[in-house]
Amino acid sequence: MQPSIVAPDTALEPVIRQRIDQKTKPPGSLGRLESLALQIALIQQTVEPTLRQPQMIVFAGDHGAARAGVSAFPQDVTWQMVENFLAGGAAISVFCRQMSLGLTVVDAGVNHDFGLRPGLVDAKIAHGTENYIERPAMTLEQARTALERGRELGHALAKNGCNVVGFGEMGIGNTASASLITHCITGVELPTVIGPGTGLDGSGLARKRALLSRAITRAGWPAEPTHLLSEFGGFEIAMMAGAMIGAAERGMTLIIDGFIVNSALLVAHVLAPDILAYCVFAHRSQEPGHRAQLEHLGVEPLMDLDLRLGEGTGAALAFPLLQASVAFLNEMASFESAGVTNKNG
Amino acid sequence: MQPSIVAPDTALEPVIRQRIDQKTKPPGSLGRLESLALQIALIQQTVEPTLRQPQMIVFAGDHGAARAGVSAFPQDVTWQMVENFLAGGAAISVFCRQMSLGLTVVDAGVNHDFGLRPGLVDAKIAHGTENYIERPAMTLEQARTALERGRELGHALAKNGCNVVGFGEMGIGNTASASLITHCITGVELPTVIGPGTGLDGSGLARKRALLSRAITRAGWPAEPTHLLSEFGGFEIAMMAGAMIGAAERGMTLIIDGFIVNSALLVAHVLAPDILAYCVFAHRSQEPGHRAQLEHLGVEPLMDLDLRLGEGTGAALAFPLLQASVAFLNEMASFESAGVTNKNG
Repeated sequence: MQPSIVAPDTALEPVIRQRIDQKTKPPGSLGRLESLALQIALIQQTVEPTLRQPQMIVFAGDHGAARAGVSAFPQDVTWQMVENFLAGGAAISVFCRQMSLGLTVVDAGVNHDFGLRPGLVDAKIAHGTENYIERPAMTLEQARTALERGRELGHALAKNGCNVVGFGEMGIGNTASASLITHCITGVELPTVIGPGTGLDGSGLARKRALLSRAITRAGWPAEPTHLLSEFGGFEIAMMAGAMIGAAERGMTLIIDGFIVNSALLVAHVLAPDILAYCVFAHRSQEPGHRAQLEHLGVEPLMDLDLRLGEGTGAALAFPLLQASVAFLNEMASFESAGVTNKNG
Repeated sequence: MQPSIVAPDTALEPVIRQRIDQKTKPPGSLGRLESLALQIALIQQTVEPTLRQPQMIVFAGDHGAARAGVSAFPQDVTWQMVENFLAGGAAISVFCRQMSLGLTVVDAGVNHDFGLRPGLVDAKIAHGTENYIERPAMTLEQARTALERGRELGHALAKNGCNVVGFGEMGIGNTASASLITHCITGVELPTVIGPGTGLDGSGLARKRALLSRAITRAGWPAEPTHLLSEFGGFEIAMMAGAMIGAAERGMTLIIDGFIVNSALLVAHVLAPDILAYCVFAHRSQEPGHRAQLEHLGVEPLMDLDLRLGEGTGAALAFPLLQASVAFLNEMASFESAGVTNKNG
């Protein structure tokens, strides 16, 4: 894949900063919201940015390694949770309703046949990945296809008029893939980036560590993104990385959730480093490997709510902060228009 | 004032926790939202809490000490910003619109005559406080009246059907009063709890420190809340403390903003320690004295966005998190209802 992402032109920055500083507030007093407003305005190349047809896109896939015992939950929970998303009963469904975010679920490779379902995009590569402890999770061809389908989905969101998208995921066992990817890209030692996921206890965590260590021994330390995805999966991570690239190619604002979504971003970032300029980091996950990812990218998330649920819930919860940053930039009065005396007035 | 606040009965806690743990998510994975849901459910004494007619109430008042040079902005900015609130152009106006929060502005003692104005409650005690560097900011009688009027406003909100209220303030010079109050109640040394407010530079900050040190030398270290308020003001802080007490007496959820709002809460907390059970702490302000307040109360705010604007902006920005916590408790499916296999299933 040859992404065509260029960082936004920063020529407008002084004009946007001036507009922010003329608002009726002490300069800088809106803190993180001011840098967020600047970022979104630069992405959209306008002093009057808008958030149009905001969407959450949740990629689901199954992992052969789940059967080897890398998760606290059985693999069937992946498709059961997809059903829960579609029925409106999952955390991400509830938060999307609250925030007026559209919700699209993508079957990237769930081990289940859903049939035709409103709200579900069938982009299935296979019925789950292979067990990467013993062999590559997928073929190179499957990894390339997943990236390309994701990219196509990113472009399609833009075609529908959407200019801001939050990313989420579902896949029993996918913190394990995220740990392997994070280890290979950041270079942080494997045990540091492995956590309890959905809730492994001490012995479960020890088993997960031993299994992932075997996977690395088998596969080595693949550096090239497609190769890395083919070794460790999953389909939902590969497709999400592609969708991030597609969305950034179309100049959208990307809301990045926690550990697993960030593992997809790490892959996209290797392919196209300028993608970072389009990314808003929603929250700091409880999953320990998230810290290594954030440090590798040199970014600081907006919130820290001790979340470790996934699904894109942190991204959805951060969305009102994006709305607030755009709203203050467009709707607040200036010192002049409101007849308020400025500091030096 | 004899507040009648009792902490909520915790008998329901196990039932609420069980309801939270049956939701389709790993136990504890919604982090701070889970404790927030528990708190609001306990305040309302129900497993199905609701947020009804949410309101921001912003208290405005002027400070005689502002003329002595404790602020970067001139005193006229107080009434000008009240006009800006009413015209919908201030940050808090914008955020209230975005979050569908009602906005009530209370003239507790602005040095300006507004006349009858929709959206403005005239509860004026006087046209600004006296300069506390030379004499008490107000009489004991005025402090008592401000507390009582605030309490009445808190009760009135409940009468209107509101059960959740965010607190905000406007008053040029009021970080100085907040510092004096914080020093006297927490015992943290004065220079540590004095900050740049709306944006004093180094020499401005040094002057503010010198002036506040003189105020403490003149007044001593008043411990009794009414006495403390009468010495250092302001009217908006006193009335807000009363409103917090009134709102908690009616079993409302209180959203506490930053440094100045917390100084009112410190006063209310001396009068009625059980008020803490009703308080949600929105954000960690950039103003350095806020840390001392949070440590004194033993609480951790939800967000840290480097805000230092005031007006209640942090409280408004935190409101979607309260909505999300109530929404997941009421709307998420349980493992059983969604047919999702649980961890031990």
